[in-house]
Amino acid sequence: MTLEEAKEKLIELQQKLSAYEHATSLIYYDGVTAAPRGAAVNRAQTLEVLSGEMYLLATGPETVELLEFLDGRKAELSEREQRMVYLLLKDIRQMRKIPMDEYVAYQRLLSEADDVWHRAKEASDFELFRPVLEQIFETNIRFAGYCAPEKDPYDYWLNEYEEGVSKESLDKFFAALRERIVPLLRKVQAAPQLDNSVIKGHFPVDRQDILSHKLMEVIGLDPEHVGLSTTEHPFTISFGSHLDERITTHYYEEDFSYSMYSVIHEGGHAMYDTGSDDELARTVLDGGVSMGIHESQSRFFENFLGRSRAFCEYLFPVLEEIFPEQMAGHTAEELYRAVNRAEPSLIRTEADELTYCLHVCVRYELEKRVMAGELAVRDLPGEWNRLYKEYLGIDVPDDKRGVLQDSHWSGGSIGYFPSYALGSAYGAQFLRRMKETVDVDGCLRRGDFAPIAAWLRERIWKHGCTYRPADLFRMAAEEEFDPMVFADYLEEKYTELYGL
Amino acid sequence: MTLEEAKEKLIELQQKLSAYEHATSLIYYDGVTAAPRGAAVNRAQTLEVLSGEMYLLATGPETVELLEFLDGRKAELSEREQRMVYLLLKDIRQMRKIPMDEYVAYQRLLSEADDVWHRAKEASDFELFRPVLEQIFETNIRFAGYCAPEKDPYDYWLNEYEEGVSKESLDKFFAALRERIVPLLRKVQAAPQLDNSVIKGHFPVDRQDILSHKLMEVIGLDPEHVGLSTTEHPFTISFGSHLDERITTHYYEEDFSYSMYSVIHEGGHAMYDTGSDDELARTVLDGGVSMGIHESQSRFFENFLGRSRAFCEYLFPVLEEIFPEQMAGHTAEELYRAVNRAEPSLIRTEADELTYCLHVCVRYELEKRVMAGELAVRDLPGEWNRLYKEYLGIDVPDDKRGVLQDSHWSGGSIGYFPSYALGSAYGAQFLRRMKETVDVDGCLRRGDFAPIAAWLRERIWKHGCTYRPADLFRMAAEEEFDPMVFADYLEEKYTELYGL
Repeated sequence: MTLEEAKEKLIELQQKLSAYEHATSLIYYDGVTAAPRGAAVNRAQTLEVLSGEMYLLATGPETVELLEFLDGRKAELSEREQRMVYLLLKDIRQMRKIPMDEYVAYQRLLSEADDVWHRAKEASDFELFRPVLEQIFETNIRFAGYCAPEKDPYDYWLNEYEEGVSKESLDKFFAALRERIVPLLRKVQAAPQLDNSVIKGHFPVDRQDILSHKLMEVIGLDPEHVGLSTTEHPFTISFGSHLDERITTHYYEEDFSYSMYSVIHEGGHAMYDTGSDDELARTVLDGGVSMGIHESQSRFFENFLGRSRAFCEYLFPVLEEIFPEQMAGHTAEELYRAVNRAEPSLIRTEADELTYCLHVCVRYELEKRVMAGELAVRDLPGEWNRLYKEYLGIDVPDDKRGVLQDSHWSGGSIGYFPSYALGSAYGAQFLRRMKETVDVDGCLRRGDFAPIAAWLRERIWKHGCTYRPADLFRMAAEEEFDPMVFADYLEEKYTELYGL
Repeated sequence: MTLEEAKEKLIELQQKLSAYEHATSLIYYDGVTAAPRGAAVNRAQTLEVLSGEMYLLATGPETVELLEFLDGRKAELSEREQRMVYLLLKDIRQMRKIPMDEYVAYQRLLSEADDVWHRAKEASDFELFRPVLEQIFETNIRFAGYCAPEKDPYDYWLNEYEEGVSKESLDKFFAALRERIVPLLRKVQAAPQLDNSVIKGHFPVDRQDILSHKLMEVIGLDPEHVGLSTTEHPFTISFGSHLDERITTHYYEEDFSYSMYSVIHEGGHAMYDTGSDDELARTVLDGGVSMGIHESQSRFFENFLGRSRAFCEYLFPVLEEIFPEQMAGHTAEELYRAVNRAEPSLIRTEADELTYCLHVCVRYELEKRVMAGELAVRDLPGEWNRLYKEYLGIDVPDDKRGVLQDSHWSGGSIGYFPSYALGSAYGAQFLRRMKETVDVDGCLRRGDFAPIAAWLRERIWKHGCTYRPADLFRMAAEEEFDPMVFADYLEEKYTELYGL
């Protein structure tokens, strides 16, 4: 095999893996958008076959030989080719440690779990979900043992979502944030509450749908490559490459802001994915590099941009056009105050910027304890409710609005939640740096996201997975990670808003 | 390999093939329902990989060895196992005659063609579509040459859609029908036209959507296994097995009957598919056996049942509930007359029962001549328009409403159209036989499709592809095929309707 032949085969391999990823992602997406209920078992059977084939392709002797050959001639590869080989070998070494039948059974379990979770959430019945959730936790612990027997299982998974992160670093990170957020929240709760009547009322789905498309256009999503659907829980997904991206939202007729910020949040994910250099399409370097960086982009769009006073000034006349009756008598400033009203609440995805990290804390604590064998899955609802009372001071009325609210666990994503908080903290540093060269508020006031997107594309998006997340963060922020920047941002914003 | 092992492997092979079919069908479906426009190339790249893998799986030495082993011990197999081996070997022998690179390139071409056709239709620009359509015709002729060099290429493809059919038999079939239909149509045209104002007006999409779901329930589709979407051109598709079936429709706000009969037509296809015995799921015997039998079911639901006076009597009060203002002052009899109004028209899928076969004739004549090299693809629009004038007496104003109206050619389905006419003719014989034991009109008047479905399930649906279409037809109809039964049905119906 010549080096040139090997390089060609490297591209071909990634083309094939992308095809399987396209198929399996689309089957998942179909399951949560259009599929009839009773088709879940049929989907699971297909996913079992395809994930088995993908496993064979990704870990087969031909692939290993190719990658080891290229790894041996690393010096002759481009930076991107080196990273492709590194990431593929890392995956293979990991996958080869998991017996194929267990890997395939896990994929099947996840496919069924998604359906079971939907039913359990609808019925607010944790017991329905418990058996599969137990299997998911057990399997994640077992797989961590196969892949990194020297590591703590939860550390292993945390590191999978954000390279370099551990229980030790996160314990410190969350403690530091809590130390600043809890006293601030107490002051906010003592002050007169902000009025949010401007976002409440009746907002028909078809009008909200117009708003969604308008927002997608404003933030800069390319309609040729990004589609919109509705699902129970909003998410972003790509099919085979960043050239086929989908976001989803969920409409509530009594409050348009839920879907509005879902579209902006998922839109941030999609801007990041679709901002990859086109030459990365259908390679392992395509799209976002880690969950933390991904959430730094989505929460950047949602909060730092979307919930800013400047953007609310742009947004209000847009809303007046789409909801003329509902907006009558209101102002942009009222909108700004309404979408930043802080108060302890039940649902993470609807939480304000200030209390959001406390929601993440609950999940982090629970995952940590179940993964360590200190907490049984059957005791999750009780502990969930206890921690919501302790951290946020509220009573959880049912599991639908409690432990069953998120789709992550049913998807096997244990260790994912901390990235939401990390992402928020990363974003605060990006914003501070960006403001040195971009008139962010001026752009937002005009609804002109292009200069903001250009900054992010140049420093973050276009690289895809070329750099390690920590390196990428430092390159973009031009400094070390420091969660206090985020705490300062929150303090300044809420002190002004609540007149503290 | 023992016989038992081989039988297990036979099931496993079909499970795998079903998984690839699930993935590729879903990618197609996504392309015409939810996908953003610019994702077509990405989809084509994925389909190229998956169809290549499927080709290797279906024609690889291990598969051939297995099937030849089983074929050698035919006597020890069940009737269904024998048929599985026969169908798989037939496919393999055929696929092995097509070079893999050409097969894969063709799949890619079809995926791109679908997108090009959509654009061309929208712009009413045949020239945009011409290059890919030329490639499709060329490839179909070439593939026919590989698979059956002794056969005429069009005969080969006709036989693929309906075993046993040829240009010779179809020339006779269409001539016999034309001989009866053309004079009948002339008499109809000379009589006073039926009023169709009851189906015209303004019918909002969301109300029509309610009607669609009501119809799906009435005809007996299981909502756990059959979903509904909207597309440019209505169709039915299954994903991996009959347990995950989808139908699509297209809403026109000025006339609800288009979508109504699309749902009933596609619903007939879906009843047939989902009526397969469950043990056939994820095998090659699952679902409908041929296009002719398939269309006999869809057109049976659409016309023989859906456009009957008895069903209109059931339907009218349903419509009164959904469209109270629009139905005010109208009657069930008016509905019956409106949905059976016969007149030469431009669009096949909107054509009445009487003129429908003439639309099919145009396509049959054109395909026959292009496949024989007697007509160039670039001359299709002109010839299309000339034949519409000759057969139906009308002028085609543009290609959107002419040669670009159907999706079949862009999907590579050349030789499919005749099955629509054959299906209609089959259905007339099924109806006559069914009426001997089922009170069809009584059932329709009550909106009770169960006894009708039970008759069809028992004689046709449950068998899936176990029997050859001609055998299945004879088993169900208990007689030989005779298109005059259909001609008699039309004559009786339209003579009464138009008072001839």
